[in-house]
Amino acid sequence: MAKGILFVLSGPSGVGKGTVCTALRGKLPKLVYSVSATTRSPRLGEEEGINYFFKTREQFMNMMQNDQLLEHAEYVGNYYGTPRDFVEKTLESGNDIILEIEVQGALQVKEKFPEGVFIFLLPPSLDELKDRIQGRGTESQATIDHRMSVAVDEISLMQHYDYAVVNDEIDSACKRIESIIVAEHCKVRR
Amino acid sequence: MAKGILFVLSGPSGVGKGTVCTALRGKLPKLVYSVSATTRSPRLGEEEGINYFFKTREQFMNMMQNDQLLEHAEYVGNYYGTPRDFVEKTLESGNDIILEIEVQGALQVKEKFPEGVFIFLLPPSLDELKDRIQGRGTESQATIDHRMSVAVDEISLMQHYDYAVVNDEIDSACKRIESIIVAEHCKVRR
Repeated sequence: MAKGILFVLSGPSGVGKGTVCTALRGKLPKLVYSVSATTRSPRLGEEEGINYFFKTREQFMNMMQNDQLLEHAEYVGNYYGTPRDFVEKTLESGNDIILEIEVQGALQVKEKFPEGVFIFLLPPSLDELKDRIQGRGTESQATIDHRMSVAVDEISLMQHYDYAVVNDEIDSACKRIESIIVAEHCKVRR
Repeated sequence: MAKGILFVLSGPSGVGKGTVCTALRGKLPKLVYSVSATTRSPRLGEEEGINYFFKTREQFMNMMQNDQLLEHAEYVGNYYGTPRDFVEKTLESGNDIILEIEVQGALQVKEKFPEGVFIFLLPPSLDELKDRIQGRGTESQATIDHRMSVAVDEISLMQHYDYAVVNDEIDSACKRIESIIVAEHCKVRR
């Protein structure tokens, strides 16, 4: 059986990665969603191996040291990462896998998994991205300014990606990503 | 304005290039179909610049010598070729262009236009291709054998192409080609 393909969907915070990923679910039967490992405690209703692989801090550090994570990051005191094992087993089974991760994490994956397909989700414009970040209504002006400056830095990393998809409208962004997945399966070099 | 992309659809004789190309028409508004130059006489209803650019043998030879053709071939005593000018003007206008040509011609185009996207149309199987060639009902056994042997040689040239699309069913083959066109427009390196 042909191995599956690893797709990485990334882009600046606020661009709508999660929404697009949710909308993609169910559209491609052979596409599996990566499950992250985390040191944070399970929330009500979250299931081991479905929402996350819940790990102690010691277990997580061991995974890092043994190169069992394709990428990892710390976020408000907890660690998050992509278990290599889950990704490799999914690909071996002939299914594709998609990772929805931050820009820095995606570049870590690219180093360990250069045969992956890296998709960068872009806002229609920087103004639009600012609106989306402000729209959450929970951030101070300083936080918004900081996030915007991070976003601009992240967009400059787009050159390391294979594809750029503008998230102008969720449905069209999804269709472009579906097209990328279909096209990658038609590549002669695979 | 962004330049368009040159797509080349090729594959062995009998695989259904023409049928797939006809089915694609109208599905992608920015996709223009290349018009070939030929030395053969116009048939009833054929229009200059629509069906072909009709040329005298001398005009055609001049085009060849002045590198005004991306590829050319002789077929039952007449010359056929792809005018470079028509292709380049279409791309400059921001439209894509698709060439439906034989395998050898496609490789000539690749030499002159390596930035093109080369799609190889494959039969579901060699048996199926034989059925299709036989199905025309107009060929002798020797001709069928010869065509099959040419087809096998041509399929071995698939490695020089970017994509391979199996023509198992016209509608799915078309959808895969449409996906390739959409995905190529999302490529970061463009």
